[in-house]
Amino acid sequence: MSRAMTGDDAFARVVPVNTQRPYKVHMGMRVLAQMEQVMAVEGLVPSRVLVVTNPTVQALWLREVEKGLASLPWDVAVIPDGEAHKNLKSVSSLYDMLAGLEFDRSSVVLALGGGVVGDVAGFAAATYMRGIAFVQVPTTLLAQVDASVGGKVAVDHPRGKNLIGAFHQPVLVLCDLATLETLPYRVYAEGLAEVVKTALIGGHELLQFAGDHADELLRRDPSVVCSVVEDCVRVKASIVAADERDLGSRMQLNLGHTFGHAIETSCGFEGVSHGEAVAVGLVMAVNLGVQLGVAGADLLHHVEHLLSRLQLPTTMAGLHAHVTPGAVRRNLRADKKRRDGRLRFLVPRAPGDIILVESVPEELISRVISESARGSAT
Amino acid sequence: MSRAMTGDDAFARVVPVNTQRPYKVHMGMRVLAQMEQVMAVEGLVPSRVLVVTNPTVQALWLREVEKGLASLPWDVAVIPDGEAHKNLKSVSSLYDMLAGLEFDRSSVVLALGGGVVGDVAGFAAATYMRGIAFVQVPTTLLAQVDASVGGKVAVDHPRGKNLIGAFHQPVLVLCDLATLETLPYRVYAEGLAEVVKTALIGGHELLQFAGDHADELLRRDPSVVCSVVEDCVRVKASIVAADERDLGSRMQLNLGHTFGHAIETSCGFEGVSHGEAVAVGLVMAVNLGVQLGVAGADLLHHVEHLLSRLQLPTTMAGLHAHVTPGAVRRNLRADKKRRDGRLRFLVPRAPGDIILVESVPEELISRVISESARGSAT
Repeated sequence: MSRAMTGDDAFARVVPVNTQRPYKVHMGMRVLAQMEQVMAVEGLVPSRVLVVTNPTVQALWLREVEKGLASLPWDVAVIPDGEAHKNLKSVSSLYDMLAGLEFDRSSVVLALGGGVVGDVAGFAAATYMRGIAFVQVPTTLLAQVDASVGGKVAVDHPRGKNLIGAFHQPVLVLCDLATLETLPYRVYAEGLAEVVKTALIGGHELLQFAGDHADELLRRDPSVVCSVVEDCVRVKASIVAADERDLGSRMQLNLGHTFGHAIETSCGFEGVSHGEAVAVGLVMAVNLGVQLGVAGADLLHHVEHLLSRLQLPTTMAGLHAHVTPGAVRRNLRADKKRRDGRLRFLVPRAPGDIILVESVPEELISRVISESARGSAT
Repeated sequence: MSRAMTGDDAFARVVPVNTQRPYKVHMGMRVLAQMEQVMAVEGLVPSRVLVVTNPTVQALWLREVEKGLASLPWDVAVIPDGEAHKNLKSVSSLYDMLAGLEFDRSSVVLALGGGVVGDVAGFAAATYMRGIAFVQVPTTLLAQVDASVGGKVAVDHPRGKNLIGAFHQPVLVLCDLATLETLPYRVYAEGLAEVVKTALIGGHELLQFAGDHADELLRRDPSVVCSVVEDCVRVKASIVAADERDLGSRMQLNLGHTFGHAIETSCGFEGVSHGEAVAVGLVMAVNLGVQLGVAGADLLHHVEHLLSRLQLPTTMAGLHAHVTPGAVRRNLRADKKRRDGRLRFLVPRAPGDIILVESVPEELISRVISESARGSAT
């Protein structure tokens, strides 16, 4: 571990998010312990704070948060670990707590955890008293580079993921890079898939940097991780600011997610992580670009190579027994039916140049699926 | 019944609401039957419609809506009658229906009923897929002049009213004045209390008109009702447009509601209707203005007289056994505790001139309560 991992703020960074109500993403090593000061800098002096977390994160990081909140009155709500608890029942338990503790419009809900915690806490904050302030403290790479910025909060319904939700921007995002050190590798790698996606959207320079520093990324070198998190947050922030309500250009953040979602649905969202599905979906999206004649084979090789070096899968082969070409085709068709019969694909022409293709010939989609299933996209 | 009650559109009116995403309130006699045309005029061509209603309104008006929706595909969701069902459980049943029927972002939720239906349907629409289009078809006077315009939607929590909610403006409000004819008198009168409140906020002319036509209002004369509904909607629309998120001036819509809420809480929200509590609360607010020396006794007499002519109570005397001076004082104190120790009162200086008084001497509040309990505010 480098000197920076032990408590100074050598890596402190601030990225503004210029949504209708602007806010900032503060990131750095051990910033949890300075939470109250950071809040004060941002003009946040809550009457009280409800820290929402899960048992795993609670065990690892709650003491640090306790230090960080210093003189602020706070309570903690623990929701069970896992996607299965991203539902209305968890939200309802937070309502009970907020109402029972008489939280009001000057109180704050603080999400300490990954995407599930952020979504459940964020939706509760969005709807308690028609919306109270919400602080995101993402503790996974996926949440730091993607989920915690942008204000999309939602929980699942038995009939669909993220069906119940709101747009509710946080008032502050605090990314402590130290929390990434305690992540199991598989959870860390999930975030790396979104890093590659964001780099592809962000442009050549970011993709090049990730390629040049894949080994450092893999071993979580703090200065490289800090730089990559900052760059990804900047990309996300600029896209969100341009299309806060997700009515147009924000769609590009779904790059790789159409195929990825079909893969996840094939195995019932179990056995293949979101990151793995996105990694394979990204390769398929680039390959579709190649098949459509808009992207070059060199881009496909670059993305495949980068994902492999980050120990992420690049093809459907061997991913999961239920992830078959037939299942993926079926799920894409179901998706199409849900979207007024239109299935549109995001494909990159080059890094930083993502286009939406409205009508893709069936045979090209089939070819992309078959090649992925055969374990070779090229 | 006049000729106008039988089907022409002699009373058709349109009031624009200039919120961030503007919309219109269409009102008139028998406009339900023209719903699809009105929607088309407003650029609304939904893929499908979920009509949310309750058993009472369903029996009276669903056939008319069926005619009005003509060629649009629609389904109906019936939630039980009454405030007790303005909760997360009812919302959850709507989520099940919306998801089960595969409603998407091009679908519409249509609330056909009073405040409860509007709140439950509105909150479901606000949060299904992070917000889908929502049409208000208010069938009570209270909902037409107040609740259906402005985008405040919320459900109750066991620990507090309207604790779970959102701001979600409708895309269209359609007020069919014919629905007011079938209201039980007590339900109609609830709306009259809000009419008097809105007239006091709106200004001298509106208050004068209500006074000059109290008898016609009482017997639901269509031309007078139409004029009053239109005027009240205009007042509400201009206040909402100036302060959509309820951060300042919109507060004046709570005139009479601080005392009113303390009265409702005293009897556990049973036995005294919201309208009755607001009527008494209005008199108390004006009396407080008199006690503070900012309002004249003539305004107090005018408001009392108008409410009496509309067969609404003007004092706490005889309202309900649990509505005692002690209970009302206690509830005001609890309110104060919830609001950071500050209890602020809205009082009129004159029609159209409502002020917020930050620190009211305890003895004046006590005097207002005692006088109301004794059955004489003057």
